[in-house]
Amino acid sequence: MLSEFDLIARYFTRPTRRPDRVALSVGDDCALLNPSPGMQLAISTDMLVEERHFFPDADPFMLGHKCLAVNLSDLAAMGATPLAFTLALSLPDARPEWLEPFSAGMLALADLHACELIGGDTTKGPRNICITVFGEIPPGQALRRDAAQAGDDIWISGTIGEARLALAACRDELKLGADAMTAACERLHAPTPRVALGMALRGIAHAAIDISDGLSGDLGHILERSKAGATLDADALPCGPNLSRQAVELRRRFALAGGDDYELCFTAPPSRRDAVLAAARTASTTVTRVGTIDVAPGLRLVDAQGATLDLQVTSFDHFASP
Amino acid sequence: MLSEFDLIARYFTRPTRRPDRVALSVGDDCALLNPSPGMQLAISTDMLVEERHFFPDADPFMLGHKCLAVNLSDLAAMGATPLAFTLALSLPDARPEWLEPFSAGMLALADLHACELIGGDTTKGPRNICITVFGEIPPGQALRRDAAQAGDDIWISGTIGEARLALAACRDELKLGADAMTAACERLHAPTPRVALGMALRGIAHAAIDISDGLSGDLGHILERSKAGATLDADALPCGPNLSRQAVELRRRFALAGGDDYELCFTAPPSRRDAVLAAARTASTTVTRVGTIDVAPGLRLVDAQGATLDLQVTSFDHFASP
Repeated sequence: MLSEFDLIARYFTRPTRRPDRVALSVGDDCALLNPSPGMQLAISTDMLVEERHFFPDADPFMLGHKCLAVNLSDLAAMGATPLAFTLALSLPDARPEWLEPFSAGMLALADLHACELIGGDTTKGPRNICITVFGEIPPGQALRRDAAQAGDDIWISGTIGEARLALAACRDELKLGADAMTAACERLHAPTPRVALGMALRGIAHAAIDISDGLSGDLGHILERSKAGATLDADALPCGPNLSRQAVELRRRFALAGGDDYELCFTAPPSRRDAVLAAARTASTTVTRVGTIDVAPGLRLVDAQGATLDLQVTSFDHFASP
Repeated sequence: MLSEFDLIARYFTRPTRRPDRVALSVGDDCALLNPSPGMQLAISTDMLVEERHFFPDADPFMLGHKCLAVNLSDLAAMGATPLAFTLALSLPDARPEWLEPFSAGMLALADLHACELIGGDTTKGPRNICITVFGEIPPGQALRRDAAQAGDDIWISGTIGEARLALAACRDELKLGADAMTAACERLHAPTPRVALGMALRGIAHAAIDISDGLSGDLGHILERSKAGATLDADALPCGPNLSRQAVELRRRFALAGGDDYELCFTAPPSRRDAVLAAARTASTTVTRVGTIDVAPGLRLVDAQGATLDLQVTSFDHFASP
């Protein structure tokens, strides 16, 4: 059995890749960061709990990826550039066969975004992974939830609903073919944080949020904070190829309330449509226009013909669900 | 039952006390901080797990205090000034009778140090409390573990060993009178982070660490990082009044390897003894000189007469202990 200190030394300690910014990394009471002059620091924390956010038999490489990805997704939703992160781990045991792929999956994604692991904590206990991530953004350019304006277009990056499709198949709520299952599980277990898109949308988008609990609930946070309403075209929602093959009711429900998508939902004025599309090309990400911000409060759903839909959808609430 | 969003709104959302520094607080994808020009950011994370770090029936007010205190103690050990923190909470349920005193205990200590809660996460799961704390320090002034020099005095703030005494009494390993039990439990459950002392030692102390896993182990981290050894006077260790009444062997063992003290262990050149004592007065904290940093590696223990002691002590390792 590895000791706590061996574990940290073996799997989570590397020479710093950013010596100009990281003055002191893993191994002291605190890490020391040199902020960039004139930049704001964006900070987000996400905690992932076994049985709640991932299955006990989750592939540790993909789990390591996902834990950091959901945090980078929060930076993306502000338009911030990743800088560094801390990792607190509670584990029932210190097994190399789990730790090695877990750290490899996490650090591979970290390297992709030049986001350096600078510190953390390890303890014995029920499996729980808590990451705090740090990014930077010029003052005034953050994509805040409270910045949507009436008349704004509502956009979504990539496709949504397939993580929920994978979950449904895992729970035997429906059947998927082998290829569809593989593709949907990739969306559930290895989400891609839209970091480049978030950065490219600085100065273009008004408000943004990442879709973690389901589009309707997450867009609801923008509406609440921005004191606005919205109309969504349920048939314009960009579903992935496997969800698109499902019946229309399920397709709409998973796209609206699926969760675990980690795409960006953002608003921008119609005058900036070309700029949004150019930002998406820069970031090699597709974006789809799915609705409009309204003065009237509340979220309205329409179909492709503009007819109002009465679709009951609820967002995920950790304490309301079993 | 409270919803996740009610919980955050009711217990963890307040008007910002530091509008110049906290540009955006609880409620968006990220918090936004304005770093002070020219300062380094000190960052530390601690995760506290039920059954491991606290008992399930722990008083929630004191637990809220302790969770933040152990993080502030890491800032103190670097000499950093507290600025802000994030809180990630996994809870089996959202009960107001637990949440109200927990948040009150945490936020009272936060206010004492002008350390603002700027964000976090809540989820359902086994009780787990993860805090990441941010402080500031002028570049080059941090009290790092690798900065001890041969010939340095070794100092300890306050008194040590009484948190371990309380634990021993709780486990029926020994008996304490009612007053002694109350005082010792106060040390275990409501530690005082030595923030003012850490800040006052900038430019005076060489190396520092906070004593969380026991003096011998934590001093060992300084020795390892500084490539040095040390001689400790086991009889000079500042025990609290209740531990002082115990037999000498137990007194030494609890002082050397007790853990959960959250006092500072630091080194400073003998030429700065007056400066150390002045810093301690500034911080209204006692400090005691307990040994010397040596060139020869290893930790040696002597008694008041200078005779070598052969005392087997081990520090706490989360994965080695049951």
